[in-house]
Amino acid sequence: MASIGTVTAQQMRFTEPLALTSGAALADYSLVYETYGRLNADKSNAVLVCHALNASHHVAGTDAEGQLGWWDNLVGPGKPLDTERFFVIGVNNPGSCFGSTGPMHLNPATGKKYGADFPVVTVEDWVDAQARLIDRLGITQLAAVLGGSLGGMQALAWTLRFPGRIRHCIGVATAPNLSAENIAFNEIARRAIITDPEFHGGHYYEHGVLPRRGLRIARMIGHVTYLSDDVMGSKFGRKLRDGAISFDFDVEFEIESYLRYQGDKFSDYFDANTYLLITRALDYFDPASAQGGDLAKTFAAVRAKFLLVSFTTDWRFSPARSRELVKALVDNRHRVSYAEIDAQHGHDAFLLDDPRYFAVMRTYFERIARECGA
Amino acid sequence: MASIGTVTAQQMRFTEPLALTSGAALADYSLVYETYGRLNADKSNAVLVCHALNASHHVAGTDAEGQLGWWDNLVGPGKPLDTERFFVIGVNNPGSCFGSTGPMHLNPATGKKYGADFPVVTVEDWVDAQARLIDRLGITQLAAVLGGSLGGMQALAWTLRFPGRIRHCIGVATAPNLSAENIAFNEIARRAIITDPEFHGGHYYEHGVLPRRGLRIARMIGHVTYLSDDVMGSKFGRKLRDGAISFDFDVEFEIESYLRYQGDKFSDYFDANTYLLITRALDYFDPASAQGGDLAKTFAAVRAKFLLVSFTTDWRFSPARSRELVKALVDNRHRVSYAEIDAQHGHDAFLLDDPRYFAVMRTYFERIARECGA
Repeated sequence: MASIGTVTAQQMRFTEPLALTSGAALADYSLVYETYGRLNADKSNAVLVCHALNASHHVAGTDAEGQLGWWDNLVGPGKPLDTERFFVIGVNNPGSCFGSTGPMHLNPATGKKYGADFPVVTVEDWVDAQARLIDRLGITQLAAVLGGSLGGMQALAWTLRFPGRIRHCIGVATAPNLSAENIAFNEIARRAIITDPEFHGGHYYEHGVLPRRGLRIARMIGHVTYLSDDVMGSKFGRKLRDGAISFDFDVEFEIESYLRYQGDKFSDYFDANTYLLITRALDYFDPASAQGGDLAKTFAAVRAKFLLVSFTTDWRFSPARSRELVKALVDNRHRVSYAEIDAQHGHDAFLLDDPRYFAVMRTYFERIARECGA
Repeated sequence: MASIGTVTAQQMRFTEPLALTSGAALADYSLVYETYGRLNADKSNAVLVCHALNASHHVAGTDAEGQLGWWDNLVGPGKPLDTERFFVIGVNNPGSCFGSTGPMHLNPATGKKYGADFPVVTVEDWVDAQARLIDRLGITQLAAVLGGSLGGMQALAWTLRFPGRIRHCIGVATAPNLSAENIAFNEIARRAIITDPEFHGGHYYEHGVLPRRGLRIARMIGHVTYLSDDVMGSKFGRKLRDGAISFDFDVEFEIESYLRYQGDKFSDYFDANTYLLITRALDYFDPASAQGGDLAKTFAAVRAKFLLVSFTTDWRFSPARSRELVKALVDNRHRVSYAEIDAQHGHDAFLLDDPRYFAVMRTYFERIARECGA
């Protein structure tokens, strides 16, 4: 299937401060975004795609650097989220390192780069920022908000924060909050970054260095949690890189080589402060906490319809976590479709074009298209 | 139940070099060990206990520092491994940091501390070193070799390396080899240590520093893999340390506090080079590799009887890995008892006194006692 072709990112500046959950505010910020397809006359066919930890506004097509979007297999002409029917918006969240205002930008209060002074942002803050972008695009109600993992948390938060502005919530491989184990892995990654001597309390930009060691470790930990034991076994197993053991601490096994490569690559393009901010947003997300942990009560007043998808070997955001959401929605007699896909690839499965998964997505978007006349 | 009381470690020096799997040799080394109970007249009641990553020869009783042995709940008078019937030996493996020759000792070839020059050792090397100690103690055949996790791998290796010298092999929460995921976690821990600027290529002793940052990260990773998602959920869940979120990167959640504490404590007493050596021994252990991965062929010629125990929530060395061993033994019509214990505590369960687990251990040791007239 053809990709959407060359796409150009746009930027929108906001001069009214964004009040944050923490009590702080983000003054004078910009959001970078991309759109694909055409907004129809009654502006009823807009779909917002929310990104997870290391992704961006660049969801589909080929950008100026020749990079394909991170969900290009799902989004494009004739694809499950069909850009010939829908107007699709990808937006980079504040605090990220891909163009929207983040720690490496100038803090208007000091004239220096934010670094560690960038305010802690939450999933709800991102949703508020996204809603302002949607306002400016002249869209009153979104046909759907879609996201995987942390992106799915944003889609969930939309249903709670702006119940009248979202018709469908599509959450893939997501969860109502992080478990202690999830938080633990985030914390270890953060400790690796913060204790890297080149982190300099988050003000490494001023020192002309990068906490690469910490970022590498963080990414390696992340990767192990994105994959399943199964897929690591079938992809790498105990394969040796050079066919024989050399009895040292260099790369012996293919899995070591893979992890080091992933860590190195990540430390070239990702920002350490952003890593801290985004993992903290993950940790904090817990909409049910205001209702004493009662998820059914939390989702009582939502008006969206839901599609939730999980993957059998995902131990990061396991099917059990999606089923908690399904139960909360069913308890409220809300409309929810749920697909538990038997897939080998762990959490990463949400980015791969598994035929059963994509068939579910296609069918659901066809239903939305019929509803909104797209 | 009473503990065995005060115990005193002993030391035995070996001047004949120990040939290692790598081709190197360990010249002039010492082993530190403890014994509990009395060797009977026909020397048939000796049980060797092998330690895992961060444990030692100090299995039971109270040592000179007032520390209780790491398996004191299992080993002692009237306990499942009853020191009134058995002569129990705990030995610290070479390369460890608890007394036996290791990286912080003097390399006779250079007169300086080994550091990174300590040879890479394998599970089989440890078993060879243990066998020499057993020789010196005048014991021809062990009633049993017992170990959990990496200790269980040593028990398995005994059955292959010295089939005539071991009557029973007891492997708890162990595996025939590490999976790619297991190796991945080891590799991340090693990278955290090796890339710590204070590691100095393993020669940090000479620099008067310790790679504590790396050791902390290594231990935090280890801890998450020792616990189950279940037990972390019930013990910590999303509990906040100070009752409210403070929107920063200090400790917010109880689980973060717990992990930092574990990391700090570990970095006070454990040696970084030892961490590298022991995780590498884990990675390398794979007795079936010489038989093209055929576990049944591997265990064809063993003569020991086996008890294998696994724990349902152990995702590090899962029940499936123990079942692979059971199948290989059954395929050979060897005698094997297998208990899969429904326990919440993940891999750590092997160190806890779960009543069902300990009942299995007690019954099995009673059987051994009857067999060997103990």
